[in-house]
Amino acid sequence: MSEQKLDQLRQKVDEINLQLIELLNERGKVVQEIGKEKIKHGINRFDPEREREVLNMVADYNKGPFETSTMQHMFKTIFQASLELQEDDHRKALLV
Amino acid sequence: MSEQKLDQLRQKVDEINLQLIELLNERGKVVQEIGKEKIKHGINRFDPEREREVLNMVADYNKGPFETSTMQHMFKTIFQASLELQEDDHRKALLV
Repeated sequence: MSEQKLDQLRQKVDEINLQLIELLNERGKVVQEIGKEKIKHGINRFDPEREREVLNMVADYNKGPFETSTMQHMFKTIFQASLELQEDDHRKALLV
Repeated sequence: MSEQKLDQLRQKVDEINLQLIELLNERGKVVQEIGKEKIKHGINRFDPEREREVLNMVADYNKGPFETSTMQHMFKTIFQASLELQEDDHRKALLV
């Protein structure tokens, strides 16, 4: 009985995981477009002011159960991965 | 003109960020329920086999642009935050 409840909850987590994969990749694509725009106009890819803006937005919209600092930490990991994505594109652009 | 394009793309990212905050917290709530079930039945909260299963799922469903290893890294950060959430609940349960 308890195993069944756990299985149900894990299925819910799996569904959310699939949505997260999709949403993160969607975000990745938009960030790549931003990177291309920045290359075109010679703007630096790393933008601490913009990151601060997003982290403030996270604080404003976070309703828990995750603590705001924890949610911001997860977003910092996403920022880092996104920056690497843009840098890969930049390297590829230089090789063309 | 270019600034306008960048602003539009950033707005898209902001919309996705809000969805991510919501989805991560939704995941957090389900994980808390799982934690409570585990406490009830004396099951260890840290479950490396289940984490491996989710990471394999990430590999199966990831279509990019993020590399699978990068996507898995983001999920590991989510796992860690989720485990902390369960541990907080456990501490609170012990204090009651």
